[in-house]
Amino acid sequence: MTSKRIFNFNAGPAALPVEVLEEIQTHFLDYGGSGMSVTEISHRSKWFDDIINDAVARTKRLLNIGEDFRVLFLQGGASLQFCMIPMNLLGEGQSADYVDTGTWSTKAIKEALQMNKTVRVAASSADKNYTFIPADIQFDPNAAYVHITSNNTIKGTQWHRYPDTGGVPLVADMSSDIMCRPFNVAPFGLIYAGAQKNIGPSGVCMVIVREDMLKNIPDNLPTMLNYNTYAAKNSMYNTPPCFGVYTIQLVLKWLEETIGGLEKMGAINTAKAEKLYAFLDASEFYHATAATDSRSLMNVTFRLASEELEKRFVEEALTNDLGGLKGHRSVGGCRASIYNATSMEAVESLIDFMKNFAAKNG
Amino acid sequence: MTSKRIFNFNAGPAALPVEVLEEIQTHFLDYGGSGMSVTEISHRSKWFDDIINDAVARTKRLLNIGEDFRVLFLQGGASLQFCMIPMNLLGEGQSADYVDTGTWSTKAIKEALQMNKTVRVAASSADKNYTFIPADIQFDPNAAYVHITSNNTIKGTQWHRYPDTGGVPLVADMSSDIMCRPFNVAPFGLIYAGAQKNIGPSGVCMVIVREDMLKNIPDNLPTMLNYNTYAAKNSMYNTPPCFGVYTIQLVLKWLEETIGGLEKMGAINTAKAEKLYAFLDASEFYHATAATDSRSLMNVTFRLASEELEKRFVEEALTNDLGGLKGHRSVGGCRASIYNATSMEAVESLIDFMKNFAAKNG
Repeated sequence: MTSKRIFNFNAGPAALPVEVLEEIQTHFLDYGGSGMSVTEISHRSKWFDDIINDAVARTKRLLNIGEDFRVLFLQGGASLQFCMIPMNLLGEGQSADYVDTGTWSTKAIKEALQMNKTVRVAASSADKNYTFIPADIQFDPNAAYVHITSNNTIKGTQWHRYPDTGGVPLVADMSSDIMCRPFNVAPFGLIYAGAQKNIGPSGVCMVIVREDMLKNIPDNLPTMLNYNTYAAKNSMYNTPPCFGVYTIQLVLKWLEETIGGLEKMGAINTAKAEKLYAFLDASEFYHATAATDSRSLMNVTFRLASEELEKRFVEEALTNDLGGLKGHRSVGGCRASIYNATSMEAVESLIDFMKNFAAKNG
Repeated sequence: MTSKRIFNFNAGPAALPVEVLEEIQTHFLDYGGSGMSVTEISHRSKWFDDIINDAVARTKRLLNIGEDFRVLFLQGGASLQFCMIPMNLLGEGQSADYVDTGTWSTKAIKEALQMNKTVRVAASSADKNYTFIPADIQFDPNAAYVHITSNNTIKGTQWHRYPDTGGVPLVADMSSDIMCRPFNVAPFGLIYAGAQKNIGPSGVCMVIVREDMLKNIPDNLPTMLNYNTYAAKNSMYNTPPCFGVYTIQLVLKWLEETIGGLEKMGAINTAKAEKLYAFLDASEFYHATAATDSRSLMNVTFRLASEELEKRFVEEALTNDLGGLKGHRSVGGCRASIYNATSMEAVESLIDFMKNFAAKNG
């Protein structure tokens, strides 16, 4: 069957590789010869065991991590992690350092405080409207962890070198840039990522946790809010979000087998972003909003001369099959999210449209 | 495209209506002419608004409930509700009554105790291995709520008349029988149901809550564990499990438009169950395990003469395209889950097979 497809610049839920969508579609009524949909098989079956184990193995290979890390699949999105992290990792008498780089960092901080935890904001880019990533931060050497948001979807900024915490475990919300390029996982105590931007559909959150972080979790937490519940049962203490884990598995397979791994994915993402930023920098009609050295490879935020023009830009783009270009409702403007599944072809089509729109309205 | 399909008696994740699966498959690359998969559209789009609002409206119509109830979609399964319910609804100095009818009730009780809440087990069927539903229960008139598990998947029992609590709000885990027949929602303060048995895929939990229950929720709870967070934002404080909500919407549409509502669904379910229980009762080879007046319409549990024979029964059934007949790993035996999407044709095929198997092995 043929389907109309547009170029999708949504911030999340976002574009998925068309090969992945086609594989899901083809086998949707009969998964692996089971005679059942992947949504109908038991999570206790060999079929699903193979899916979740393959998703874990591919995550470990792609990120080059070993036995000292666990890969878990939770529900509730990154937003649930905002409370689970301090609940699990920040004991009485301890303090954690947070870097505030915008909405999602701010929410993570607020949630820790909501639970009467001791949090220190070690650095913030609030003074310049969150348009940059802070550098040269002095961390508390006794902090239980240092929390960062690796990529900020709303303001379009991204950490390009993770901070040196002097051995304090990094905890990172990587919802919007996990698997966008290789990085050294060793300094991270915990990484979490809502899948719906770069690795899957909404409704599943990947958590990568270092074994030693699991040792001091209080044993009086609610069962479903304790990382050890998931670690002990391969994320299947209760029924996991099976369709989400399955889609993640297929996206990771695509990353390994079609793209060829994270080095290659990183090169493609860099080329896409450089092309779009170069166009913006050369234009007088569009204005990129993030500080040059903090620009995100994933979310390219820009403004036009007026809100009225921005509105027209987003609408006209959609009639040209370029979707999802509206900025986050909290900040306005425009945003092109160019995650892994958004191709160079899509970026080039966007630039062509932007040229024409500028010529007509400039 | 043609796909092999078997008769699916899984306990959950479980069979979905084939019409629903086909609709998902057909439009999987292009939802509603958007040029995007339903997994790729924004949850802030008109497309998804229509999906979630339609799912809520259909739930209210099917259950005949009005403006005094809210229909919410959460993540984390019924297991997360085990802690959220006491956290939200059981304040300091209050006590709640729980009826213990097996594994899931027991877990709900354990989770409330884990949070140092005051819980009274008002009745239990533990003395007869959870094979029946207790009657004539004396409830605490001052209890904050009375918690029941409306259907017990593992032991194959079901409440056929909900208890009179004298006005104390009922809270029910209806994961395995929601929408199986009509019932009066008025006495319920809160109903929750992991979708993966009767109304959708895993990864989404429906919560139906009466407005007055939302009024006394403590405001110091973690954001994602407070029902008011979901009620205030139509379940979209953060990204909801979009694919799950979409599938639920289609299942509810099927219930309304193909089946014709819950009266008709109830009649079909009763006919299916009566046929299978009648066969079991007439047989000397198979032995139904639940007390006659407590038998579940959804999960028909039975034993054969030996575990070896049961193992062979399950295996041979699968080679005859009858899947998922193994009992829960905690109790053994056999179980045919005959949820809404499992047809009379499936039940009749199962009975035919059971006759042949008995004839060969009796």
